[in-house]
Amino acid sequence: MRTLLGKRAKKAGLAPGTLVHVGEQKIAKPRISIFDYNEEEFVEKTPESIEECFPLKETETVSWINIDGLHDTHLIESIGKRFELHPLILEDILNTQQRPKVDDFEDYLFIVLRMISFNETKNEIESEQVSVVLGKNYVLTFQERPGDVFDSVRERIRKAKGRVRKGGCDYLAYALLDAIVDNYFSVLETVSERVEALEAAAMGDPTPKNLRDIHRLKNSMTFLRKSIWPLREIVNSLVRGESKLIDEKTDVYLRDLYDHTIQVTDAIDTFRDMLSGLIDVYLSSVSNKMNEVMKVLTIFAALFIPLTFLAGIYGMNFEFMPELKWRIGYPIILLLMISITVVMLFYFRRKKWLWQRKEGT
Amino acid sequence: MRTLLGKRAKKAGLAPGTLVHVGEQKIAKPRISIFDYNEEEFVEKTPESIEECFPLKETETVSWINIDGLHDTHLIESIGKRFELHPLILEDILNTQQRPKVDDFEDYLFIVLRMISFNETKNEIESEQVSVVLGKNYVLTFQERPGDVFDSVRERIRKAKGRVRKGGCDYLAYALLDAIVDNYFSVLETVSERVEALEAAAMGDPTPKNLRDIHRLKNSMTFLRKSIWPLREIVNSLVRGESKLIDEKTDVYLRDLYDHTIQVTDAIDTFRDMLSGLIDVYLSSVSNKMNEVMKVLTIFAALFIPLTFLAGIYGMNFEFMPELKWRIGYPIILLLMISITVVMLFYFRRKKWLWQRKEGT
Amino acid sequence: MRTLLGKRAKKAGLAPGTLVHVGEQKIAKPRISIFDYNEEEFVEKTPESIEECFPLKETETVSWINIDGLHDTHLIESIGKRFELHPLILEDILNTQQRPKVDDFEDYLFIVLRMISFNETKNEIESEQVSVVLGKNYVLTFQERPGDVFDSVRERIRKAKGRVRKGGCDYLAYALLDAIVDNYFSVLETVSERVEALEAAAMGDPTPKNLRDIHRLKNSMTFLRKSIWPLREIVNSLVRGESKLIDEKTDVYLRDLYDHTIQVTDAIDTFRDMLSGLIDVYLSSVSNKMNEVMKVLTIFAALFIPLTFLAGIYGMNFEFMPELKWRIGYPIILLLMISITVVMLFYFRRKKWLWQRKEGT
Amino acid sequence: MRTLLGKRAKKAGLAPGTLVHVGEQKIAKPRISIFDYNEEEFVEKTPESIEECFPLKETETVSWINIDGLHDTHLIESIGKRFELHPLILEDILNTQQRPKVDDFEDYLFIVLRMISFNETKNEIESEQVSVVLGKNYVLTFQERPGDVFDSVRERIRKAKGRVRKGGCDYLAYALLDAIVDNYFSVLETVSERVEALEAAAMGDPTPKNLRDIHRLKNSMTFLRKSIWPLREIVNSLVRGESKLIDEKTDVYLRDLYDHTIQVTDAIDTFRDMLSGLIDVYLSSVSNKMNEVMKVLTIFAALFIPLTFLAGIYGMNFEFMPELKWRIGYPIILLLMISITVVMLFYFRRKKWLWQRKEGT
Amino acid sequence: MRTLLGKRAKKAGLAPGTLVHVGEQKIAKPRISIFDYNEEEFVEKTPESIEECFPLKETETVSWINIDGLHDTHLIESIGKRFELHPLILEDILNTQQRPKVDDFEDYLFIVLRMISFNETKNEIESEQVSVVLGKNYVLTFQERPGDVFDSVRERIRKAKGRVRKGGCDYLAYALLDAIVDNYFSVLETVSERVEALEAAAMGDPTPKNLRDIHRLKNSMTFLRKSIWPLREIVNSLVRGESKLIDEKTDVYLRDLYDHTIQVTDAIDTFRDMLSGLIDVYLSSVSNKMNEVMKVLTIFAALFIPLTFLAGIYGMNFEFMPELKWRIGYPIILLLMISITVVMLFYFRRKKWLWQRKEGT
Repeated sequence: MRTLLGKRAKKAGLAPGTLVHVGEQKIAKPRISIFDYNEEEFVEKTPESIEECFPLKETETVSWINIDGLHDTHLIESIGKRFELHPLILEDILNTQQRPKVDDFEDYLFIVLRMISFNETKNEIESEQVSVVLGKNYVLTFQERPGDVFDSVRERIRKAKGRVRKGGCDYLAYALLDAIVDNYFSVLETVSERVEALEAAAMGDPTPKNLRDIHRLKNSMTFLRKSIWPLREIVNSLVRGESKLIDEKTDVYLRDLYDHTIQVTDAIDTFRDMLSGLIDVYLSSVSNKMNEVMKVLTIFAALFIPLTFLAGIYGMNFEFMPELKWRIGYPIILLLMISITVVMLFYFRRKKWLWQRKEGT
Repeated sequence: MRTLLGKRAKKAGLAPGTLVHVGEQKIAKPRISIFDYNEEEFVEKTPESIEECFPLKETETVSWINIDGLHDTHLIESIGKRFELHPLILEDILNTQQRPKVDDFEDYLFIVLRMISFNETKNEIESEQVSVVLGKNYVLTFQERPGDVFDSVRERIRKAKGRVRKGGCDYLAYALLDAIVDNYFSVLETVSERVEALEAAAMGDPTPKNLRDIHRLKNSMTFLRKSIWPLREIVNSLVRGESKLIDEKTDVYLRDLYDHTIQVTDAIDTFRDMLSGLIDVYLSSVSNKMNEVMKVLTIFAALFIPLTFLAGIYGMNFEFMPELKWRIGYPIILLLMISITVVMLFYFRRKKWLWQRKEGT
Repeated sequence: MRTLLGKRAKKAGLAPGTLVHVGEQKIAKPRISIFDYNEEEFVEKTPESIEECFPLKETETVSWINIDGLHDTHLIESIGKRFELHPLILEDILNTQQRPKVDDFEDYLFIVLRMISFNETKNEIESEQVSVVLGKNYVLTFQERPGDVFDSVRERIRKAKGRVRKGGCDYLAYALLDAIVDNYFSVLETVSERVEALEAAAMGDPTPKNLRDIHRLKNSMTFLRKSIWPLREIVNSLVRGESKLIDEKTDVYLRDLYDHTIQVTDAIDTFRDMLSGLIDVYLSSVSNKMNEVMKVLTIFAALFIPLTFLAGIYGMNFEFMPELKWRIGYPIILLLMISITVVMLFYFRRKKWLWQRKEGT
Repeated sequence: MRTLLGKRAKKAGLAPGTLVHVGEQKIAKPRISIFDYNEEEFVEKTPESIEECFPLKETETVSWINIDGLHDTHLIESIGKRFELHPLILEDILNTQQRPKVDDFEDYLFIVLRMISFNETKNEIESEQVSVVLGKNYVLTFQERPGDVFDSVRERIRKAKGRVRKGGCDYLAYALLDAIVDNYFSVLETVSERVEALEAAAMGDPTPKNLRDIHRLKNSMTFLRKSIWPLREIVNSLVRGESKLIDEKTDVYLRDLYDHTIQVTDAIDTFRDMLSGLIDVYLSSVSNKMNEVMKVLTIFAALFIPLTFLAGIYGMNFEFMPELKWRIGYPIILLLMISITVVMLFYFRRKKWLWQRKEGT
Repeated sequence: MRTLLGKRAKKAGLAPGTLVHVGEQKIAKPRISIFDYNEEEFVEKTPESIEECFPLKETETVSWINIDGLHDTHLIESIGKRFELHPLILEDILNTQQRPKVDDFEDYLFIVLRMISFNETKNEIESEQVSVVLGKNYVLTFQERPGDVFDSVRERIRKAKGRVRKGGCDYLAYALLDAIVDNYFSVLETVSERVEALEAAAMGDPTPKNLRDIHRLKNSMTFLRKSIWPLREIVNSLVRGESKLIDEKTDVYLRDLYDHTIQVTDAIDTFRDMLSGLIDVYLSSVSNKMNEVMKVLTIFAALFIPLTFLAGIYGMNFEFMPELKWRIGYPIILLLMISITVVMLFYFRRKKWLWQRKEGT
């Protein structure tokens, strides 16, 4: 829930453009890594200081500079100055609760995305902000912490697999977006398994914990939908080719990506619908169990109440109760009781209140 | 549920355009079949190797090449090269969890569709991806497994029935789409019967299994809606005649097809609404049965509790209880008990707690 | 439900344009009737064979040819040939489960509509397809069975009432559409009465049958909405005057008709909302009745359980129970029982569990 | 509910443009009143016959002719002829169940609106149709019965307060619309009070009547929404200045009016949401009361059932029951019973089934 | 609820443009404060009379005139005259229940906004209207009472922090809007905490008060949504740069503000969804507690009813009951009772009606 708003309040009252890292510090020291390549050559570096990256802005090669860790505002500021980024961009990079968006600043495109993962232990979907700046000869990426979904892209650059080394910066940016969206599919597969497990539980032997899990997973889907929905518009606006930074050849890949984002939001919507439906199933299962309890009570009470009354009658101390003197009074009364029981059981059977295995559980 | 995402995860991290068959292998060896015809002539072949098909690309006749089975990526790749298809198209053909879509590549149109069937034994709607490539002189279709809904089209080609032999490739593609949409009507008819059966069950004698069936059928409809909804837009974009591959004369047929897709989605929406309503009816039926049980309990308890108390009174062992000595004490008390019972029964009748057959069940 | 899909499946696999009557045969022999008129003259005929109608295509007078009964495909085909109608139009006329639509074929407009009626005995809304072909000098109407809502239009033609004899074919078509929409109002009035009756029942003394009726009426509304909603767009497209067949003077009438179609869909939406709300009211009424039953049970149980226990105490057979020997033991215990009862009743009254007439029922 | 459809059915089958008053006759004789003014002069008249009004059509002064009572179709017809109104307009004026709309006939604008009032005794929102015809030099208003919300406008004309005497016919029409919308606010204030009262009742001590009131008020809001929603579009189309009859200077007032109509529909939507929520609160309150009843039953039953059993044991007539002979048997058994009661009460307290005042009610 | 409509009714019937303060008087005497600055100079004043502000209209410096307290209509009127504001603007400023909006009067922009705060003691969201008039050289702000969210802006002006002193009036207006939107984040953070607390309560130990709190908070969100939703359109229309008063340089800031307003409405929607879900969780928790009570009742009743019956049998006074004479009759019967109890407990355990700690609570 907090993630909807983040620690925005911490910033309230500051001048727009003031750089404050909004979010937890998730790494001791920011880590910089560089991939610099063209079709023929390829260099991978992890420089100590950011100044090493600065010459890359002008070189003709594709330069991907990735920064892990955002709490060092001076670092971000110096990158901002060198790459001539607008102060509001820097603010957005540091304020890690941004809604996904794309901003076109003519010389560069600024894209904010959310990278998600399913924390199995906490049973929650976690998300991390990834900011991408796409310039003419460079791609900057900013992440909150080390560890990401870009390893496959790195591998393809290193081994010159696929089109990535032949493509320009726009293709690299596409590849990064594609990796993030591919990761959504993995996470949603986990969600799909959880939904199936909850469905089985709700239909079988529901516990209050199930309802809470359904409720939380549904909230997660609501939250995820809000984070991923804008992605559709982002990719669509890139497809429409409004920016000169994106080559026409990349369009077909972006259109493919667009199809994927639609598939992701479709899946989220479907899960939400399913989870809503599951609440009905859960409540009905619970009330079904209740009904079974009630039936038992009713059968016991209805069976024994008349019998007990009969026993009560002959427990009365009236002096003149002829039946009490009869020798066969006791056996008769016992027979009567048995008959009543049998009649009642037949009645209940006809009413289908007795267990019928064939109903399933 | 899985079908929403498929085995997409298997592909995560691969370069876009890498050919991997995402889906189960559903046939031992891919099967190729060719229909090559114009208004006068007609040839049907099932060649052993794909190379036989290649000359058909340039011939003036309409050539329909159908491939059943997608796991042989080399086969798909060689077709792709010969017919100059974009690598992403090939990827989409193999990745059998695509959302329906149409892509216009100037020289050819790429259409992805879902063909559905109702698996009566599993009580589920199953779907299979059909990819259609519409070129100038050829139509390629790719299916996951043998067996499809195109037999009527084949028959019409063989017997030169209707317009199909007179029309071009665009008409053939229309006929294939039309066959798929016609099949939706058949499947929805089965769904309609199931909804009616569930309605009767929910209103009559509901079992927990009914609710689960309603829930699952509703989920199927949600899923089906997501698969069929994009079809509207696809057919509409074909109608708008943006592609040169589609002749003006085919437009009127496509408009007819468009009307049918709207009818299909309308029907799905209506079934979803009905199934949602059925859940209310089911829950109410269950709680109604519960109420009947409760009434029986109440009537038994309320009838016998005062009588038992009365018997208890005269079961007390006080030495000085004058009534116990009376000769008519016992008959009086029995009469009193009968009167109480009669009064109570009248009261319950007035309260309408006793069975009233006229209420229906 | 069937009406959503009709017997479409029967047609699956036939070539588009193949004429098969999809629907039940509702009349032994198709009946043809002709109204041929201009401002001065008027002729009404019911010819035996369709050929008599053919000359009317060219005459300058307004010719309204109405066909009741659609199973004679040869008849429809010969009309189609003579009036040069597209084969798909003929198919649509025969396939009586069409969604309302308008198709503009330059020389003629093809309009499909649904005419509804409330079958009081079956408690259902029934609908019949009416196809209207509006040409330059003629209007063709096709109905499934005799009996329609056009009698008022016929009367006005016969008696030259209103503008109908002065107007052209477009005005006649408008008059027919207007008669159909006016009929919707009549049917919805019946629905309105049923909703009021169900509301009274749900609030008063609800039976399970009520819920089923609410459910069915709501389904009817869902179905009706789907059939009537497209009408809005149809009339609107006629208003926009895109066809040369519609005179500008008729526009103001069509705009009026448009307002009426909106009123109809508004009314249907409102009824659906009301019926949804009624389900809540029904369920609450039922649970209210249940609560009353429970209260009675509780009061009986809570009143008598302690008293019975007390009687049980003095029914014990201990030898040394001094109270049993007291002369006033019995009266004291009776007084105690009465006091407990009075205290309990006061408690229940304070808790408002006893009947309070002022609550209403 | 009837108000949705009115007595439309009465008209079904008549030629469009036939004048029939659809609605109850609400006044014995139609009443005509005239306000004729410009910035300097002002005349107020209540003429006996409509002919007196006719010259006003051409005079340069602003002439407001108001007719109360619509059953005299001849009167309406003669006005229609003199002011050259389209027959369908006259039909709409008489058919008092119109949806709000504006029709632009070049020479005059025709506006239909609904004036609402809250009938406190019937607890319902009532509405009356007001038709406004805005011509170049005149404004005609038609109402179903005397009594309206225009008194403040009349007063302003009489006393030359505000801009009304300086403005033209368009400003007068605006002033009338504004008076109607202002009245919506008054009525909604009453609704707001009723919602608050129902909220208090639902949270405190709910009766079945409350639910019915919530249900009815919600239905009223649904109905009101349908009547007021089109107003937005009406005022908006006037603002867009498509008619020459509306001066640019009046635009800013109309825009203000537009804001007010949005506020009204926003308020109605909010009330609907609140009333939907109230149903949940009501149902929960009811089930809460039920739970309290159940708890009492459970506590009584659970407390006394074991005690009664114990008493039953020692009520058995076995000859060899040593306890019965013990002198302290009776006191011991009484002590045992008290201990059981105390233990049970502790258990229930721990389970929080005993009354805890701090929970609130 | 009242806040939706305010005291609008008080105004009903007055001429549009009549100045009446609609709202409570929240300050004894209106307080005026002036910030007059450019990049080099800065003056802060709190003049006694409004006349001191009038020269500022023409000076080239940026002049921010803030008025706290709106009940002095003469003051507002004299400002209106001097700054040539339209009478309807003045009316809107005084009528403090406006919907947020922007009006473009060429020479100045008029913006109405709502400033919110969470009243912890009343547990309610309160809102206050802020009207902003943006002219060429001046910004006027009108508030209902002292105390606002602009202190950070004031501080930045005083200390020349950020861009504010370099920017023009449009930047100042942006800064004020930004401060208001930033404040929304703070308030929503409080809401977020309350939602979490209610979630914990609903899942743990729900009281009726919780439901009411959920209901009220949900209503607050509904209300808040209505107040903030129009803001999106307002900021968007400012971004589109339709007014000459807004410099292109400010656009990037406004776009940033636009992103924030979307985040705010997203958060409100999510909270509403969550609160709706919470009602289900609450109701389920309550019914769960109920079920536990019912189980206890059932177990007690089902355990003791047969035993009591057995005791009743041997409490009967038949003369010929051989068991009563047996020496081991009593022990046997006691053993029988214990066996029945053990069997029943086993049965209940198998049915999972006995407490199972592992289920969680």
